[in-house]
Amino acid sequence: MKDLKDRIKIDGKIDGDKVLVGSFLNHQIDIDLISDMAKNTYNHFKEEKITKVLTIESSGIAIGTMVAKEFGVPLVFAKKNKASTLPPNAYVTEVASFTYQNTYPVYVSSDLINKDDRILIVDDFLAQGNAVYGLIDIINQADASLVGINIAIEKGFQNGGRNLRADGYNVYSLAIIDGYEDGEIIFR
Amino acid sequence: MKDLKDRIKIDGKIDGDKVLVGSFLNHQIDIDLISDMAKNTYNHFKEEKITKVLTIESSGIAIGTMVAKEFGVPLVFAKKNKASTLPPNAYVTEVASFTYQNTYPVYVSSDLINKDDRILIVDDFLAQGNAVYGLIDIINQADASLVGINIAIEKGFQNGGRNLRADGYNVYSLAIIDGYEDGEIIFR
Repeated sequence: MKDLKDRIKIDGKIDGDKVLVGSFLNHQIDIDLISDMAKNTYNHFKEEKITKVLTIESSGIAIGTMVAKEFGVPLVFAKKNKASTLPPNAYVTEVASFTYQNTYPVYVSSDLINKDDRILIVDDFLAQGNAVYGLIDIINQADASLVGINIAIEKGFQNGGRNLRADGYNVYSLAIIDGYEDGEIIFR
Repeated sequence: MKDLKDRIKIDGKIDGDKVLVGSFLNHQIDIDLISDMAKNTYNHFKEEKITKVLTIESSGIAIGTMVAKEFGVPLVFAKKNKASTLPPNAYVTEVASFTYQNTYPVYVSSDLINKDDRILIVDDFLAQGNAVYGLIDIINQADASLVGINIAIEKGFQNGGRNLRADGYNVYSLAIIDGYEDGEIIFR
């Protein structure tokens, strides 16, 4: 999606193998931009009879809200468990964090998704794919259908997108970064 | 706001002194409902020349996104610091968590708000007011102006709303719960 790529070029900050987009996507949110991104996503998946958008806290929530608004369906966000005990009646999975070198439990209340749901996963970044695989595990536990995976920025030089596509999932990324050259971002 | 109160009565679950609204407000999000809530909030504050909406991750983000969309301004969400070191160039404050009986650092990058900003704070719940007071501290560090505080559900039987109003802040809550009687919610 051209608008997003242009914005990443202008306002994204390269930091090692990361691109920092806190000024418009995951700390401050440019509402007009994510609204246009959501319309683009809607056009891509509009025939799919999606019943729910699923994301994971926190940085997927703003984008997920706008995507859910386009489809006219609820947003569900998986919660990271911070309490010592897990909530009752929940689908629980473990997600590995590359950044913090640990794993953490993530859950969705079992009354929020069911076997009749056709779910679109939305997230801001795709790198190793750990969060997305966790959400897929939850969808499978609920016996619901996964229609597709909508990512704002995919890091094409990491394995998540490649593995998910090899597994047969419909991954739709609005911008794919293949690497950096002389301080410039190379888009696919 | 009648629609929100009705929904709390129908789908809220009373659990001790808490009301659980995960089925429509902070785990699953009813987009039509929060869109109507945001329109109500816009009508209340539309003369105030708001330049930014400020919330705190995670459960304020969906509501904050819709409010920011109504005002046509960016959303900023304060981040809970999970790393061992704080990010550079950030306004940092400590927020006490009643639920987890500890305090945690919260920050906003210092390039995201400044002295010319007129800020509306948005959050899903107001109880003791700890999160809101933390956001106010950040706004003060940035020398920005706080225009008002928009809360979805205020627990009127706790001190947050009372203290904030006594301190002179413009608190606009869409539903205020004064207590529970025979398993029914008493709204103010």
